[in-house]
Amino acid sequence: MKKPRWVIEKEQARRAEVAGTVWLFGLHAVRDALENPRREKLRLIATRNAADKLAAAIDASGMTPEIADPRKFTAPLDPGSVHQGAALEAKPLDWGNLADLAMRDGPGAPRLVLLDRVTDPHNVGAILRSAEVFGARAVIAPRHHSAPETGALAKTASGALERQPYLRVRNLADAITELQGMGYVVLGLAGEADQTVETALDGRRDRPVALVLGAEGPGLRPRTRETVDALVRIDATGGFGSLNVSNAAAVALYAARG
Amino acid sequence: MKKPRWVIEKEQARRAEVAGTVWLFGLHAVRDALENPRREKLRLIATRNAADKLAAAIDASGMTPEIADPRKFTAPLDPGSVHQGAALEAKPLDWGNLADLAMRDGPGAPRLVLLDRVTDPHNVGAILRSAEVFGARAVIAPRHHSAPETGALAKTASGALERQPYLRVRNLADAITELQGMGYVVLGLAGEADQTVETALDGRRDRPVALVLGAEGPGLRPRTRETVDALVRIDATGGFGSLNVSNAAAVALYAARG
Repeated sequence: MKKPRWVIEKEQARRAEVAGTVWLFGLHAVRDALENPRREKLRLIATRNAADKLAAAIDASGMTPEIADPRKFTAPLDPGSVHQGAALEAKPLDWGNLADLAMRDGPGAPRLVLLDRVTDPHNVGAILRSAEVFGARAVIAPRHHSAPETGALAKTASGALERQPYLRVRNLADAITELQGMGYVVLGLAGEADQTVETALDGRRDRPVALVLGAEGPGLRPRTRETVDALVRIDATGGFGSLNVSNAAAVALYAARG
Repeated sequence: MKKPRWVIEKEQARRAEVAGTVWLFGLHAVRDALENPRREKLRLIATRNAADKLAAAIDASGMTPEIADPRKFTAPLDPGSVHQGAALEAKPLDWGNLADLAMRDGPGAPRLVLLDRVTDPHNVGAILRSAEVFGARAVIAPRHHSAPETGALAKTASGALERQPYLRVRNLADAITELQGMGYVVLGLAGEADQTVETALDGRRDRPVALVLGAEGPGLRPRTRETVDALVRIDATGGFGSLNVSNAAAVALYAARG
């Protein structure tokens, strides 16, 4: 029996974590990483065809690609990865510390997204895209029980991983307390909350705001719920169902825009 | 070389389309389908363990499960499908016609989502969830070049497929014209549009509204762009990037809520 995709991705994540490197794949993700001067690049494997398509980015990076035969592409990727003939081994990006990210300049009043044990790389990738679109300063997650930087995450993030800070911290509740000390209003998303994002921010949209989302099913952990300033829900008219976590993050960022 | 997931899913979709049936899998999706009286069910394959977990739903459905050995689960599913020991062959749901769906009762002013060649089942599944949460009357897509009802779509929809109308029409531009004739304001999402969803609906939130989204990359087709009442964008503060299509749909539904 073949391993299900989530098992493969979990194993890949663990290997990358042990090695301290990440294999990015796919033309889009590899090009964005090659063009990112902050990205420490170790090894580029590409087919002749992919190397031609990436020629400008490869030149800019100063790397020499190892040319691979398309029929036996040698990069250690998951079977089934849509690599398009390009794979780049790189170091995870170093985004510095929470205080610098939370206080950095950017469009509009500062916004942050905090993820409480959201482990699915596809959801986190989509959330990085939304965070970038809505000008959030960073996406913050705990070091353990969260989605590490992997090729699958980078591919779903569609370039946003190179530009949108994704910081993993030791302890999420401590990070929340630190943000509160910097003046952040920290709102936890919970379907059963009484007030909406809009009402919670009424009259204080100019404040820095951090939005905390939990994984689907378990939701926010008890310690997270106790630490945030308020629990809020998304104003929705339907009586049924629930949003996928990346959709909830996008709507919350929109509802909280400053 | 193993087939990438998107190739497998495309083949599965084609097979299901030819057979006129769909294999739903996973405890959640199978339970919801068993409990849906509108769902025509043909064949249930379950491990002893899964059948125990689904006992109430199986009783309610009146079906007799074919008990399968967990080590050789015989349902014709994709390798890698997280079936949790349960698979149900069923007919796609019959959602009737556009006019009835567009005019049906529901919470708030009527809203619809129209998808212009969005083919990824995971995106469409997430959009069905969001449509349900925001009380949209239906999700409409063209019969060809869109995601058919498959097990992968049902699983991502997390139950919403059983409750949220997903209607596929012959021609999307004709459907738009028909909706305009019923009094719908039809807005096409396009990143380069001048006005936002909010400004386009200023003073007419009580009107029925249809939101049209295209696939990532190509966006709306020329005929769609010419047919809608206006092109609109999502109000966002960041300067870079773009939303994943399911995130764009969720934010647009929120921004257009009546």
